[in-house]
Amino acid sequence: MLKVPQHQVAGHEAGIGKLGPLVDESGRFYKPLQGDERGANEVAFYSSLSTNSGIPEHIQRFFPTFYGTQLVEASDGSGSLPHLVLEDLALGHVNPSIMDIKIGSRTWAPEASEKYIQKCLKKDRESSSLSLGFRISGLQIYRSKELGFWKPGKKAAQKLSTEEVKLVLRRFVSSNTLNDLDLRPDCAFASTVYGGSTGILSQLLELKAWFEDQTIFHLYSCSILVIFEKELALKGKNPGAHIKLIDFAHVYEGRGVIDHNFLGGLCSLIKFISDILTAPSDCRIDISAKADQKNLTADNGVVADQKNLTTSKNGVVADQKNLTASDNVVADHKNLTV
Amino acid sequence: MLKVPQHQVAGHEAGIGKLGPLVDESGRFYKPLQGDERGANEVAFYSSLSTNSGIPEHIQRFFPTFYGTQLVEASDGSGSLPHLVLEDLALGHVNPSIMDIKIGSRTWAPEASEKYIQKCLKKDRESSSLSLGFRISGLQIYRSKELGFWKPGKKAAQKLSTEEVKLVLRRFVSSNTLNDLDLRPDCAFASTVYGGSTGILSQLLELKAWFEDQTIFHLYSCSILVIFEKELALKGKNPGAHIKLIDFAHVYEGRGVIDHNFLGGLCSLIKFISDILTAPSDCRIDISAKADQKNLTADNGVVADQKNLTTSKNGVVADQKNLTASDNVVADHKNLTV
Repeated sequence: MLKVPQHQVAGHEAGIGKLGPLVDESGRFYKPLQGDERGANEVAFYSSLSTNSGIPEHIQRFFPTFYGTQLVEASDGSGSLPHLVLEDLALGHVNPSIMDIKIGSRTWAPEASEKYIQKCLKKDRESSSLSLGFRISGLQIYRSKELGFWKPGKKAAQKLSTEEVKLVLRRFVSSNTLNDLDLRPDCAFASTVYGGSTGILSQLLELKAWFEDQTIFHLYSCSILVIFEKELALKGKNPGAHIKLIDFAHVYEGRGVIDHNFLGGLCSLIKFISDILTAPSDCRIDISAKADQKNLTADNGVVADQKNLTTSKNGVVADQKNLTASDNVVADHKNLTV
Repeated sequence: MLKVPQHQVAGHEAGIGKLGPLVDESGRFYKPLQGDERGANEVAFYSSLSTNSGIPEHIQRFFPTFYGTQLVEASDGSGSLPHLVLEDLALGHVNPSIMDIKIGSRTWAPEASEKYIQKCLKKDRESSSLSLGFRISGLQIYRSKELGFWKPGKKAAQKLSTEEVKLVLRRFVSSNTLNDLDLRPDCAFASTVYGGSTGILSQLLELKAWFEDQTIFHLYSCSILVIFEKELALKGKNPGAHIKLIDFAHVYEGRGVIDHNFLGGLCSLIKFISDILTAPSDCRIDISAKADQKNLTADNGVVADQKNLTTSKNGVVADQKNLTASDNVVADHKNLTV
C-alpha cells in the first residue's frame, strides 16, 4: 500500500486533493511526473544516468537509484498517473535529521522561457539563493523521543539570513536542540557528521571535484539532501551521514561548459560547513545576530509542524502526517490530522 | 605628458570629447573617477587593499599598485578631474598580447539598484557571461611586426560562443595567427604561457584557492587581465605571462559569504585553460563549429581595428591610436586617424 512519506522536508506534499510523492513498504519512492517538459526532462535524466560513462562510480552513488516509471493511483485522488519510481532515501532511517539544500544562486537556465526565468529570478532574489548561492528548501532536526522533530516552515527556511544559516547548520549537528531558540548549539556531532574521511564535507568535496570538471549536465534547481541519524550519533555509533542529489526537472546539457552556477553555490555551502569544523565551539552570536533571527522564532510559524506530532507505529514520536478528510493549512504547513 | 594608453583592450577609451584613461611615461595609469558612487567605491577598495590583513601577499600581487588619486586634465577636454593613479600594467611591454576577461555569470550585486540590475542582467544574458560564467571584454593578440595585432571588436568578443572562446583562448597562445580565420591554432606557447609552475593556470589556481575561502569582498563586473609578450616566447625566453585583477567599481562587502559568483566563473575559465594544456594539439574544429564562428570573421567588423595600424616610435607596427580631430566610428571601433 502506498502512503505519504514520513520524512519529506521540501517540495509538494501529498494530501487530500494535493498531488505529491508516495512511498511503499519495499523502499520505493513514487514521484508524480510533472505533465509538462519537466516530467519528461527528469525521466530522460534518470534514464541516462546509469549508462552515462561520464559519471564515475563514486559520483553515481550520490544519485538515487532509478527504477523506471510506473502508473500509480495519484495522491490527489485524480486517478492513475505516471510516476518516477526512485529509491526511498528515508528507508532504513528511524528519525533522520534531513536538510534539503537547493544549490545555485540561479535556479533558471539561460534557455528557459522568459516567463519561467522571471518567476525563478524573483524567488532567487527573495530567498537566500542570490546572496548565499543556495537556499535551504526545508529541514527537520531530530530533537528527542518526547519532542520529535524541529521543523521550520519552508518559506522561512528559504529566506534565512547568513547568520541564521550558520546557526541552522550548527544546530543540525548539535545535541542541545531541545530549546528552539537556543542560540548556542554545541555542535556535538560536527566531527562525526560533517567531518571525517566519509563525512558530509568529504562527500561535498568529492562532488565539487567532479563539478570542476564535468561539462555533461547543468543542474538548475537541483538539491543536495543531507541525512543522518542523530540517535546513532548519541550512542557513539556511525550516524550514516550522507548526501544525495535530487530534483532533476531542470537539467540542461552542459555543451562543453562546467556548471559554474552549481559549483559556485556548492563551494559556498562547503565554506559554511568547513568553518563549523574549523571552529565547532565558535558559537558567538552577538546582539545583532540575535536580532537577525527573525526567520527562526516561534511566532513566525516555524514550529507549527510540531502541533501535528503523533505517535508512530514504532512508538517514536515523529511528524507522521495522517492522510484524512480534514485539511487545515497553518502558515505553509499542511496540518493533516485524523 | 599624459597620453592615450597604447594597449587598452576594453573599457572606455580616451578620445576627442571622450573621457578615458591616460598614462604617463613613468609607468602610471590615470583612470578618471566615475562621478557617482562607482568612483568612490573604487577609491575605497584600492585604499583598503594594501592594509587589508585578509589579503595575503601572494594574492596582493594580483592587484595593480595604487598611488592614490590626483587631479588631472581629463582626456575629453572637460578640464581638471580626479583620477585614480594606478600602475600602468603595459609598462615594460613592447607588444603585449592581452585579454580582458570579465568574471562572473552575474555582473550585478543583489544590493544594486533595480535599474542597474536590469541593465546588467540584459547584458549578461546577451553576452557569454550567463552561459560561460565570464565574457571576454576585449583582447589583442600580437601577430608579427608587419601585421601588428589581431584585435576583435569588443562587442563581438563579449558574445563569443563556447566554440569561439575555445578558439580564441587557443589562438592567444599560438604562433600561427597570421591568418585571422585560422581555425587550427597550433598552441605553440600553451605550455610556456598557460602551463608551468608560474604560468597563467597556476596563477588562476592560486586565485581560486583564495576565493574558496575569502569572505571579505564580492567583486562584481571585475576583470582578470591576462598578459604576455609573444616575441619573448618566440625567442624561447620567458614571456612573462601574468594575470591582474582590475575594475573595482562594483565591489561589495562579503558579509561572511564567499564570492560564489566570481568563483564559479573563475572555475569555468580554469576548465577552458586546463583543457588546452591537457590537449594542446586537439584542434578539431568541425563544420558546425566553423559555422559557429560568426563573431570571429572579417565581415563582422572584427579586424576593423587593423585599418588603424601605424608605425609607432620603436618601429614596431602596433595599434597606436593617434588622438586627432577626425573621429569616425566604424562598428564599435574608434577609428582615430591623423
